[in-house]
Amino acid sequence: MVYFDSDYMVGAHPEVMHRLVETNGLHTVGYGCDEFTAKARELILQACGIPAGEVYLLEGGTQTNAVVIDRLLDHNDGVMATETAHINVHESGAIEANGHKVLALPEHEGKLRADDIRAYIRDYNDDDTRLHKVRPGMVYISYPTELGTLYTRRELEAIKEVCGEYGIPLYIDGARLAYGLAANGELTLRDIASLCDVFYIGGTKCGALFGEAVVTRRPELLPRFFSLIKLHGALLAKGRLLGVQFCALFADGLYERIGKHAIAMAIKLKSGFIAKGYRPFIDSPTNQQFFILPNEKIDSLKEVASFELWGPRCEKETPVRFVTDWATTEEDIATLLSSL
Amino acid sequence: MVYFDSDYMVGAHPEVMHRLVETNGLHTVGYGCDEFTAKARELILQACGIPAGEVYLLEGGTQTNAVVIDRLLDHNDGVMATETAHINVHESGAIEANGHKVLALPEHEGKLRADDIRAYIRDYNDDDTRLHKVRPGMVYISYPTELGTLYTRRELEAIKEVCGEYGIPLYIDGARLAYGLAANGELTLRDIASLCDVFYIGGTKCGALFGEAVVTRRPELLPRFFSLIKLHGALLAKGRLLGVQFCALFADGLYERIGKHAIAMAIKLKSGFIAKGYRPFIDSPTNQQFFILPNEKIDSLKEVASFELWGPRCEKETPVRFVTDWATTEEDIATLLSSL
Amino acid sequence: MVYFDSDYMVGAHPEVMHRLVETNGLHTVGYGCDEFTAKARELILQACGIPAGEVYLLEGGTQTNAVVIDRLLDHNDGVMATETAHINVHESGAIEANGHKVLALPEHEGKLRADDIRAYIRDYNDDDTRLHKVRPGMVYISYPTELGTLYTRRELEAIKEVCGEYGIPLYIDGARLAYGLAANGELTLRDIASLCDVFYIGGTKCGALFGEAVVTRRPELLPRFFSLIKLHGALLAKGRLLGVQFCALFADGLYERIGKHAIAMAIKLKSGFIAKGYRPFIDSPTNQQFFILPNEKIDSLKEVASFELWGPRCEKETPVRFVTDWATTEEDIATLLSSL
Amino acid sequence: MVYFDSDYMVGAHPEVMHRLVETNGLHTVGYGCDEFTAKARELILQACGIPAGEVYLLEGGTQTNAVVIDRLLDHNDGVMATETAHINVHESGAIEANGHKVLALPEHEGKLRADDIRAYIRDYNDDDTRLHKVRPGMVYISYPTELGTLYTRRELEAIKEVCGEYGIPLYIDGARLAYGLAANGELTLRDIASLCDVFYIGGTKCGALFGEAVVTRRPELLPRFFSLIKLHGALLAKGRLLGVQFCALFADGLYERIGKHAIAMAIKLKSGFIAKGYRPFIDSPTNQQFFILPNEKIDSLKEVASFELWGPRCEKETPVRFVTDWATTEEDIATLLSSL
Repeated sequence: MVYFDSDYMVGAHPEVMHRLVETNGLHTVGYGCDEFTAKARELILQACGIPAGEVYLLEGGTQTNAVVIDRLLDHNDGVMATETAHINVHESGAIEANGHKVLALPEHEGKLRADDIRAYIRDYNDDDTRLHKVRPGMVYISYPTELGTLYTRRELEAIKEVCGEYGIPLYIDGARLAYGLAANGELTLRDIASLCDVFYIGGTKCGALFGEAVVTRRPELLPRFFSLIKLHGALLAKGRLLGVQFCALFADGLYERIGKHAIAMAIKLKSGFIAKGYRPFIDSPTNQQFFILPNEKIDSLKEVASFELWGPRCEKETPVRFVTDWATTEEDIATLLSSL
Repeated sequence: MVYFDSDYMVGAHPEVMHRLVETNGLHTVGYGCDEFTAKARELILQACGIPAGEVYLLEGGTQTNAVVIDRLLDHNDGVMATETAHINVHESGAIEANGHKVLALPEHEGKLRADDIRAYIRDYNDDDTRLHKVRPGMVYISYPTELGTLYTRRELEAIKEVCGEYGIPLYIDGARLAYGLAANGELTLRDIASLCDVFYIGGTKCGALFGEAVVTRRPELLPRFFSLIKLHGALLAKGRLLGVQFCALFADGLYERIGKHAIAMAIKLKSGFIAKGYRPFIDSPTNQQFFILPNEKIDSLKEVASFELWGPRCEKETPVRFVTDWATTEEDIATLLSSL
Repeated sequence: MVYFDSDYMVGAHPEVMHRLVETNGLHTVGYGCDEFTAKARELILQACGIPAGEVYLLEGGTQTNAVVIDRLLDHNDGVMATETAHINVHESGAIEANGHKVLALPEHEGKLRADDIRAYIRDYNDDDTRLHKVRPGMVYISYPTELGTLYTRRELEAIKEVCGEYGIPLYIDGARLAYGLAANGELTLRDIASLCDVFYIGGTKCGALFGEAVVTRRPELLPRFFSLIKLHGALLAKGRLLGVQFCALFADGLYERIGKHAIAMAIKLKSGFIAKGYRPFIDSPTNQQFFILPNEKIDSLKEVASFELWGPRCEKETPVRFVTDWATTEEDIATLLSSL
Repeated sequence: MVYFDSDYMVGAHPEVMHRLVETNGLHTVGYGCDEFTAKARELILQACGIPAGEVYLLEGGTQTNAVVIDRLLDHNDGVMATETAHINVHESGAIEANGHKVLALPEHEGKLRADDIRAYIRDYNDDDTRLHKVRPGMVYISYPTELGTLYTRRELEAIKEVCGEYGIPLYIDGARLAYGLAANGELTLRDIASLCDVFYIGGTKCGALFGEAVVTRRPELLPRFFSLIKLHGALLAKGRLLGVQFCALFADGLYERIGKHAIAMAIKLKSGFIAKGYRPFIDSPTNQQFFILPNEKIDSLKEVASFELWGPRCEKETPVRFVTDWATTEEDIATLLSSL
């Protein structure tokens, strides 16, 4: 069996695992006050080109979104995001559980448009009853999006501009950031770091056992964040585990290599499907590839490969998703394609 | 100047006010444990035909929605409502502030459809990732709706049926219930009480100074509700003020008379506009009437009458709203129509 | 029967009621944007001597405490208060329901001491684990206290000083403020307004039907407060009802007169009890009087007067409480005393 | 340097780490729906002697307490615990952030007494104003306590009895459960499982990298717990990491061995201190040992050993804490004792 269900099905990249084993017996202080976490912070800020920025290491994506958004929003504020945004659909209502409304805007191939954001805020500002409404208090996007697509530099700059215009922060969910960076020559990690206010570098789906690094070039946006992390039950006692992993990912270009490998595999997979005449459900340049397959083809493919239907099974043909990661091999792809 | 802005612009109906004055000097115990509140409960349950039901008196509509919905939903549950529902648009995020998502469904002339509810729940149930999503835990509708429209008996029965099918409660926001009951021969107060699980009889907009009566034929749905009301800051110290008002409204058919008067005025207003060739923005049978007027007509009318634009001013003509209540007089209508 | 249970047993002072009746038929805009509310704001700021301050009118005490404290505290902050504070004991957990811990400190005749506050904050600041703890973020006191006692000017100044030292706000719950001001030559309304950051002038227990006026000399402490009031379900649709009442209370010295009357009655009551040899449970100068009475005396007194035991009935004698207000008459006192 | 600061300073026990490495490259489904988690559940239920029970694997202690308590309490309920309980002191207000009050009761060597619980509930039940108060809705204790002490069977049975009497659940925080079980012949894991309603088996401090296993013999107490875990941001994507670790801990008696080793080291340490004439701050039978040391002795000891002051440094002598775990060696103890 070959596996393309998701990018959280295997453990950590061997180099990450190696560092965890190597450091396992060392004694360090807890709660992320250790030297590994300090080093990870330094490496990340360097890689992002924001030496005066700040980094916090958390455990998972839903948790990270919940804590960051809870910090960035005032009472009565909502977070603008696409209807299909992870926070709007797949986080069990975590944002609302912390008291905030997700203000769902239209999506265009998984992306939010600057114009829609501006229109929403203008309507709010023009509304005589606005004090009875939820105030649009920040923007959430993901890079790559849930559909594997990427914002262009121009699109992201436009969103940054509208946020700046209205003085609200832009937050990027980078659960799969490695793949976004590897897929696209246009935006680098430094670009991401400077184009938004807060973002997170996904570890869980990009080669770590678990862990996400919240990064900001504006530390004043996250006051008292340590206590807030603790209050949300998101502070790891053996915090150095996060530090060790992010050191491994950022010390020697590993994060970049992981991204590039998964993208290379994804491109092979995509080309193979297209060569065999299948049409993409959406044109994704990243490690998630979506195709529309006849149901009987899905059934036969399921005998050799594990992957997800994208939505409910339709009558004749159904969109499916294939995800690559650090563990995907050329052989996996060959096996999959040969079964098409 | 004549006033048609809303139904909360004047004080209480004189009969209500009279009872408040008359009882002002009496000593009673606090927090709604008094005899007036007991009597109001009895009168309301009698009028609703549910002697084994329960009644709680609260202060205002947003507060009532927040407390009831907080009680009816479990963690992780959301409330289904139309996109235009008061709880989704005009309550400053009160539902989310208590931890719950509003699951916005399409509206049809302000109304929610049983089929849309069923489809939403089915999609949720069929979704493999449903445990990562917000569970649809109850249905919220308003009667009349925000647009003044009314559910037919058949529409309401269909919603009750789908709720029953999936074991979730149906809650009706009756902020303007008096006008819904007076406008429509099809549904009585008893019908409302039996067709939903919990509803509230609006006082604020229907002749009281303030106050809403939460009614349920299933008291087990609102366990420990007294303490929850207190916890939400919604428990009135001089609770008998609510009791006295609802006694006045329900002792002698006053609630019905108030509804009928406002509807009579609304019909006169509507006929007058139609006779003069204006077309309704929506065909409302209740005390809110919506017309599309040329902007210059709006400007001239504003010199004699106070009323609201319904949405932002458009280029040439704009929808406007006229609201009647117990205080609207034949003269008010005549003045308005003569200025058309 | 004569009534001394509490100060929320009767309706509004006749002058307040008169104004409500007089203005009942007027049309005004809703939600406190009316001229009566504006006038009330002006009168209150004038009476407080803080023309650049701000006033917000809410409905009840628990609600007011919840909304103000929710606004003043950051995530992870707690509110310091005495163990016996209303917010710690009798608000059904409303403060916690909004996410904040009540940090209970010792009480001394119902009062909080500056030294205890300072010691608590110092311990917190000196604690290496403080980022894992709840930060003391504000001080809550009531004036008068739950036990009817009053802070001296020196005590209040000392608390203000420690709050200033650590940059945290001091909030005063003035549910019974009228009685505190009338009882004591030392502190005026202006003193209160300048010695704390935010306080509320109690209406419900001091002559209004309902209503509390939040006052601050530092409006920047309560940003976006209107929307927060709405979000908490605490915004009255017919907001002018609060404006009319506070206009009545502050236009012609009525608030002061109500306080003085109740205090005069309380002093008569107190003197009468002492003259008959009963000893106070606590020496209160305000409208709540506490005496320790033999149980058989309590039983016989209960036949002519209504009042509360202060805590559970003890074996032989039990503390009881008598409360006066605007409606207490010389005859009531005479009846009570003659039955001793 | 030898380390006695805490039991979260090193990584996982080598056998746990070995299993993580060994399984690192396997593909499994996410979110704890994998076979390792299923196996861990089975092993734990077997070890606890409650085959019909249920197990949930979470990431850390504060998080686990927050999620479990949020599930067990209704609105308006509080959790009874000692003043020194972890949830009351060292979780940044996480319980309150979820809306619940910690009802702090006296502690006796770190322990809660059944009599204090009963008295508290009785007072609540007897209080006429109880509906205005926070209802005592559950009991939280830790085993071992924060001070390393252990409840006797009789003490625990008495608490279970009072909980049963009033129909409220008893929850045990077992962050250091391995050490409690190893120290004491009186109570086994099966005893713990049957004497409380819900408890957690601490992994983080007892040999795992991270992870806590929530166990209940009454699964109906934790309905829809998966979604609640997700909502709290506590659901690990690569959930099998927890499963693998708990399999390692429970497959071959490792959890027991880890406990026994740490206790053996603690006893050596304790005997050594006592032999040299130092007196314990508290008589702890578990892996936390507390002694009162002269300040100059603390200073000299700090040159070879790392450990924590227990509270602020006093004038002449100060209580300090030494903690052992799986990584503590005979040599560490020898080094420490030889420096005394």
